[in-house]
Amino acid sequence: MKDMADTGLLSPVRAGTEVEAAVSDRAWLQAMLDAEAALARAQAKLGTLPVLAAEAITRAADATRFDLREIALAARETANPVVALVQSLTRLVAAEVPAAADYVHRGSTSQDIFDTGAMLVVRRALTVIRADLARAAEALARLAAEHRDTPMAGRTLALQAVPTTFGLKAAGWRQSLLDAEERLARVAGQHLPVSLGGAAGTLAGYLEYAGIGGVRRTPEEYVTDLEEAFAAETGLSRPALPWHALRTPIADVAAALAFTAGALGKIAVDVQNLTRTELGEVSEPFVPGRGSSSAMPHKRNPVLATLIRTAALQVPVLAAGLTQCLLAEDERSGGAWHAEWQPLRECLRLVGGAAYTAVELAEGLRVHPDRMRENLARTGGQLVTERIAARLVPALGKARARELVDEASTTARTLDRPLHQVLAELPEVRAALAPAELTGLVDPDSYVGAAGALVDRAVGPRPR
Amino acid sequence: MKDMADTGLLSPVRAGTEVEAAVSDRAWLQAMLDAEAALARAQAKLGTLPVLAAEAITRAADATRFDLREIALAARETANPVVALVQSLTRLVAAEVPAAADYVHRGSTSQDIFDTGAMLVVRRALTVIRADLARAAEALARLAAEHRDTPMAGRTLALQAVPTTFGLKAAGWRQSLLDAEERLARVAGQHLPVSLGGAAGTLAGYLEYAGIGGVRRTPEEYVTDLEEAFAAETGLSRPALPWHALRTPIADVAAALAFTAGALGKIAVDVQNLTRTELGEVSEPFVPGRGSSSAMPHKRNPVLATLIRTAALQVPVLAAGLTQCLLAEDERSGGAWHAEWQPLRECLRLVGGAAYTAVELAEGLRVHPDRMRENLARTGGQLVTERIAARLVPALGKARARELVDEASTTARTLDRPLHQVLAELPEVRAALAPAELTGLVDPDSYVGAAGALVDRAVGPRPR
Amino acid sequence: MKDMADTGLLSPVRAGTEVEAAVSDRAWLQAMLDAEAALARAQAKLGTLPVLAAEAITRAADATRFDLREIALAARETANPVVALVQSLTRLVAAEVPAAADYVHRGSTSQDIFDTGAMLVVRRALTVIRADLARAAEALARLAAEHRDTPMAGRTLALQAVPTTFGLKAAGWRQSLLDAEERLARVAGQHLPVSLGGAAGTLAGYLEYAGIGGVRRTPEEYVTDLEEAFAAETGLSRPALPWHALRTPIADVAAALAFTAGALGKIAVDVQNLTRTELGEVSEPFVPGRGSSSAMPHKRNPVLATLIRTAALQVPVLAAGLTQCLLAEDERSGGAWHAEWQPLRECLRLVGGAAYTAVELAEGLRVHPDRMRENLARTGGQLVTERIAARLVPALGKARARELVDEASTTARTLDRPLHQVLAELPEVRAALAPAELTGLVDPDSYVGAAGALVDRAVGPRPR
Amino acid sequence: MKDMADTGLLSPVRAGTEVEAAVSDRAWLQAMLDAEAALARAQAKLGTLPVLAAEAITRAADATRFDLREIALAARETANPVVALVQSLTRLVAAEVPAAADYVHRGSTSQDIFDTGAMLVVRRALTVIRADLARAAEALARLAAEHRDTPMAGRTLALQAVPTTFGLKAAGWRQSLLDAEERLARVAGQHLPVSLGGAAGTLAGYLEYAGIGGVRRTPEEYVTDLEEAFAAETGLSRPALPWHALRTPIADVAAALAFTAGALGKIAVDVQNLTRTELGEVSEPFVPGRGSSSAMPHKRNPVLATLIRTAALQVPVLAAGLTQCLLAEDERSGGAWHAEWQPLRECLRLVGGAAYTAVELAEGLRVHPDRMRENLARTGGQLVTERIAARLVPALGKARARELVDEASTTARTLDRPLHQVLAELPEVRAALAPAELTGLVDPDSYVGAAGALVDRAVGPRPR
Repeated sequence: MKDMADTGLLSPVRAGTEVEAAVSDRAWLQAMLDAEAALARAQAKLGTLPVLAAEAITRAADATRFDLREIALAARETANPVVALVQSLTRLVAAEVPAAADYVHRGSTSQDIFDTGAMLVVRRALTVIRADLARAAEALARLAAEHRDTPMAGRTLALQAVPTTFGLKAAGWRQSLLDAEERLARVAGQHLPVSLGGAAGTLAGYLEYAGIGGVRRTPEEYVTDLEEAFAAETGLSRPALPWHALRTPIADVAAALAFTAGALGKIAVDVQNLTRTELGEVSEPFVPGRGSSSAMPHKRNPVLATLIRTAALQVPVLAAGLTQCLLAEDERSGGAWHAEWQPLRECLRLVGGAAYTAVELAEGLRVHPDRMRENLARTGGQLVTERIAARLVPALGKARARELVDEASTTARTLDRPLHQVLAELPEVRAALAPAELTGLVDPDSYVGAAGALVDRAVGPRPR
Repeated sequence: MKDMADTGLLSPVRAGTEVEAAVSDRAWLQAMLDAEAALARAQAKLGTLPVLAAEAITRAADATRFDLREIALAARETANPVVALVQSLTRLVAAEVPAAADYVHRGSTSQDIFDTGAMLVVRRALTVIRADLARAAEALARLAAEHRDTPMAGRTLALQAVPTTFGLKAAGWRQSLLDAEERLARVAGQHLPVSLGGAAGTLAGYLEYAGIGGVRRTPEEYVTDLEEAFAAETGLSRPALPWHALRTPIADVAAALAFTAGALGKIAVDVQNLTRTELGEVSEPFVPGRGSSSAMPHKRNPVLATLIRTAALQVPVLAAGLTQCLLAEDERSGGAWHAEWQPLRECLRLVGGAAYTAVELAEGLRVHPDRMRENLARTGGQLVTERIAARLVPALGKARARELVDEASTTARTLDRPLHQVLAELPEVRAALAPAELTGLVDPDSYVGAAGALVDRAVGPRPR
Repeated sequence: MKDMADTGLLSPVRAGTEVEAAVSDRAWLQAMLDAEAALARAQAKLGTLPVLAAEAITRAADATRFDLREIALAARETANPVVALVQSLTRLVAAEVPAAADYVHRGSTSQDIFDTGAMLVVRRALTVIRADLARAAEALARLAAEHRDTPMAGRTLALQAVPTTFGLKAAGWRQSLLDAEERLARVAGQHLPVSLGGAAGTLAGYLEYAGIGGVRRTPEEYVTDLEEAFAAETGLSRPALPWHALRTPIADVAAALAFTAGALGKIAVDVQNLTRTELGEVSEPFVPGRGSSSAMPHKRNPVLATLIRTAALQVPVLAAGLTQCLLAEDERSGGAWHAEWQPLRECLRLVGGAAYTAVELAEGLRVHPDRMRENLARTGGQLVTERIAARLVPALGKARARELVDEASTTARTLDRPLHQVLAELPEVRAALAPAELTGLVDPDSYVGAAGALVDRAVGPRPR
Repeated sequence: MKDMADTGLLSPVRAGTEVEAAVSDRAWLQAMLDAEAALARAQAKLGTLPVLAAEAITRAADATRFDLREIALAARETANPVVALVQSLTRLVAAEVPAAADYVHRGSTSQDIFDTGAMLVVRRALTVIRADLARAAEALARLAAEHRDTPMAGRTLALQAVPTTFGLKAAGWRQSLLDAEERLARVAGQHLPVSLGGAAGTLAGYLEYAGIGGVRRTPEEYVTDLEEAFAAETGLSRPALPWHALRTPIADVAAALAFTAGALGKIAVDVQNLTRTELGEVSEPFVPGRGSSSAMPHKRNPVLATLIRTAALQVPVLAAGLTQCLLAEDERSGGAWHAEWQPLRECLRLVGGAAYTAVELAEGLRVHPDRMRENLARTGGQLVTERIAARLVPALGKARARELVDEASTTARTLDRPLHQVLAELPEVRAALAPAELTGLVDPDSYVGAAGALVDRAVGPRPR
């Protein structure tokens, strides 16, 4: 077994994080056991299974008492781990309360247990992820407010375009995380149902066993009651219909996780670019030893952004794999269902690792307004050509204004002169704009548009 | 140009459908022109652009007056089609109202126009798709009600498992389409915003030009008013923040479309399997010439299911491509944005074609209860082993009951005898169940569990 | 650590297989250590590192002496596990031969070690996979030869089309596996290079340290010699250029594995369809307990095909993720490289598990010619409409021949009569074909075209 | 029809390129017609079809005489365009040589024609793509040779690491393109087979019709001869077996195209980064109007790199979609085959457009050694810490050397002083290295390792 360790060696973004533990093989096994126990209790609540049996099953449903590897290997024989899990669970129950053993997994089917367990794992992991997103968003809100008026170059298609503020950039990052949190919350709140269908989605086994117990209820009533009791015991929601081959919940989780990965990844690629030696506008939090290279003593690699980006690169295709599994044939698919399991776990832990890492990044990000200002100055004022053209339009018309600024811009670049000087020498410009006015126009600080207003709208006005 | 035709030759699922036209190059161009016109009118409404200019721009914004191919080719020079579109639009406006030409695209940037146009295209396409989903869902509701009690074999991992009903199957298909419609409706209702950011998301250009016009408003007020006016003119929603590099709307659309493709594809794979010569439980609507083969006169291929499945196979990976584009660096990406366009269109028209095809499939599907019954009879009662085991548990205990049914089942299969006969010869069974009872138990019709109740819940009780 | 177990619980296709062990965290760590040791020996061979140091490093490079989890967790600080690995290795070497410690990782960089280690893991896994593919192909060749003349329905678009033979089907499956093996062999033979670039691909560190040792060689010579020695020590090939950010080897492996997954998956979906209760033309090897259901005693689920299909559904998107990582910016990417690791391992073990499973499936597959014949008879001869039309063309012309067979086919289907009887009553047919001739034509056995010849070509003629 | 134009509006990377025309709907139709004509000629060559009929079919097989849209719409009825194509072709042939009409599509099936046509389209497109790759590679070879010794910062994880040369970078880009060309050449040379299987892959229809003609040949001989003749007429290769449901050729094409997209995309992301305003080390070829922004007169966006990157972002997931289609069930899939068509075309034209664009980029790229030198100087010598540490090891041991350089590096960065000055003040350093030696060591030009040697190896030594 020691060689079976999943230490995260190949996936540092999630190594050692809370979500890694929450989606481990053992956690998954525990969740399936929780599903078995909850199902027994739900049936007991309805009077179709002895309370003592439900209690014995609940006591035995403890993952630490099971041999994980044995169950995993047995799953090759039945294409899922539930068959072996039920056998082990039955043995444990029988050892304690022999009469209870027959009530294990009563009326149920592997997929009810696996899928309910999976939803429990998802819910637990989403709780962790959402908390980290909220923390990261809060840190970004602080950054946005603090740098509401810190000018920096807005960059488009890799080039400096017009000025913006770091506050607006941080507010945008935060907005993405809020969007992600909203989507995850929606899934967690409404779209994580128990699975309760029996062998082919008709609940016939549940009813048959219940009938033996002598219940006097219509199938309608019993199914409704059982769904409600099972949902109550697990904390999950009730499904519209049995969903063995109607995989809406999986697709919803996949979509929300893929979005979250992307929202986090957007921050990472921005941080990487702003960290470039030549830009130097932000740097990651300094931690001794962090970011060191095996070869180059001077380097402090932006490892947090790197880790987050690894998750963001992996999740979308994994999520596509999950979406494809919507094509589940028949009442239960031979393959499309089983192909969901590992990618679902991987999406959860990659996103969880990235969210965890983003908290550290957002809370510790160091911003360098001096480097931002230095970079703004590099183009000698070219960053405000849009504005100057706008100011010349009334006098020259749009076409001529644009043409003139275009030429001046090329001249300034070629001769490496400040743009406003080149412009000031042009008669048409002099006729339209006073020299002082021109000097004012090229100040990038004064051309950040509604950046401040947008930050205020997004994160509330900065307390003064 | 005649060789530039996109006839749908390689994508019959959408050839000739309404959504194909709604997302064509020309429709896309018109949507971008609609965005330009709406922007001008919005500015006019705020008093920062002459009403006459807005009217002239609106009149000129007619895609039939533009040379699509010229604009497409020019897009290679600027990496997007808006620059050339603005030039052409400006010329058309200038030809009619020279003074209005300077007001075209005032303060704006390519991405504001392209993205707003894209959202208009999406909204129009979603309207068509949602109507088709609703129609298909309605037809499936009728099928579900009609076949509420039509028994058929439930199949899991390719094998007959326990009985179910065709009504429950149809109700499940419908539920998936309702899930899809709900997700598309959510996106259409709240998540299709105008794009209004200017060169780098600060709206500086809009403010600069407005300032020239002498407006007396704070940036906050002006931005809010402009967003509202633009949203009102287009019928789109207001964004939380400029979203040039925060691609939530695209990811939302992609996720909802991928889900819809999967929901439709689930129906298609089921229909394909049930149509198999050896199953023959359903067949596609008969239309003369439909489904004919170039080689085999007798064949009536299930072409509708085939077409739908083609879309379902393509969309998830295209949607993953769109999700990846969340990693848009800086204030505007040089590539991640542009890589969205064609896959977004492709997702829309594939899903639109599949939804259109699904209407025809659902409304015309022919169901063959006799073949269902015939197939149910094939296993000589093995389909109800779960039930018989359940009935034997009180007498024999779960393990022995299962073992006994397991053996009897193997015997019956090997000797090709009906299961209940084999069982009836076993003393343990005879002690527990009367022969008549046993015969009743193997009737598949009486073992469909809550199927009817689930159909009633899903589509309402069948009118009698 | 016990909760860190990767037991394969969610991925039964590879649980317990040889390839699972070959790509485990521990195996990966060992491979990186092998790379460190080989690099030291290569330098020693060139005289730029003391032989005693190389020997000490080789002795210490034993993964069982390292704390895997510690290294994995430390990797979060540096975004890769090599930094911590080098520290641990240095400590172990220092404890034994203090003077050797300074020679660990000499001149090297993390990526050289990681990538060389990865190539070693890939090679080892490919050896296992290729052996399994060869075994499965051999078994399929036997099946193809044995069933060279076993007729069965050829099926297209889900319907019976014209007859074929099971031999041809098996020969096709085998051909796909041979194609896969050829592609993997090509990659294994030529495209698994050592990584040797140093900090930024110039090998400057290697040269600098070598220079200190007083070597008298040009950089050209030294680099060539070092590459050759490193390749010889590892058994890998020499790269064209350092490939830190030129990821051809990864893309090659990904493509070959994705193809292999698809080739195996094709067999799986065919077996699943042929196993359907209503077809019953093949069944999986019988193993007691195998394929049992948690609910239904009678079922013998086709679990091998199911497992293989799970891999085939997962690998293509994982491989796409690897291909995307070709967009590695700069001399080394901050993220695109790291995002390869886990998907690469996952592709290897999924394909390895599927290949292992395919051996069991191919060697044990049970073929049921009686059921094939029964199914062939179901359509009452419609399966040979193509042939009858062909025979009528000379007399009636193609259009009329097709039309007539088309109508007769519909009549036969509607009235549930054998096609040749319906045809025999038509004057046009009687004029063209004698009744006996017609009866012969509808015998599916005599209309399998070149199936036998194709099998002979593919697998050699059947020994008689 | 005018609204059916596919102008490339949403895909500028391929708008107007040669490959766009080579894969258009019309080109695809022509290729299928070429397949029909070649098949007829092949049969005529074997004496099983009248030569005059083959000639008439060849004459009629002219796409300009067909109504593309009509065929595309008819394809909805049969799920593929070949049925309608055959009808139209038959009409045209009948109008000219009535007796020849019955020989159209003789013995064939839709998929034989479609797939053979697809292979023809692929071959034509690959020819164009390979020529562009070769041209781009040649231009990069010139750049590599020219800048063999142009030092620049090597960058890893976004930060300056150690020096490299622009020559080595260009040589790496070229190597990737050569790798791509090699993979495409392999596919084009051996892996583009004709499709010849008939209705279910047995060639029964071909044999049946040939038999009617009175041929005296075994099926083996006839099939071999027909394959050879068909291959000769089309210029394609012979398949190992009929491949209707064994999709190796599609997977091979997809893999090679995905790799090519990635190889081109690597160049694009590097160019984008090096073009950043703050780096400025390269710029795209200057073309008046090129790269202009709709808002900012000063910008010269790197549009070529942007366009290439759009393709590189789209192709991997499309290729994954193609690979998934390996799971083609039965003798012909109802959906998996059809889902290949549009993605295959899209991959071809995206890669073709990117290759075309890469020629212009590579041939016109402007390199700025002065900016490279300027950037190299930015870190005050930190770029060579690896080297200095290496030089101090003999005196101080590795651990102390590294620690000392690490500290000096932090000091230099914090105080913004040149590293060699900080080092020169440290007693341990002074003891080991003379001041002049230290000054020499920090010269980045002298620390480019084997960069020149690697360039020479890759592109041959620079002519002097």
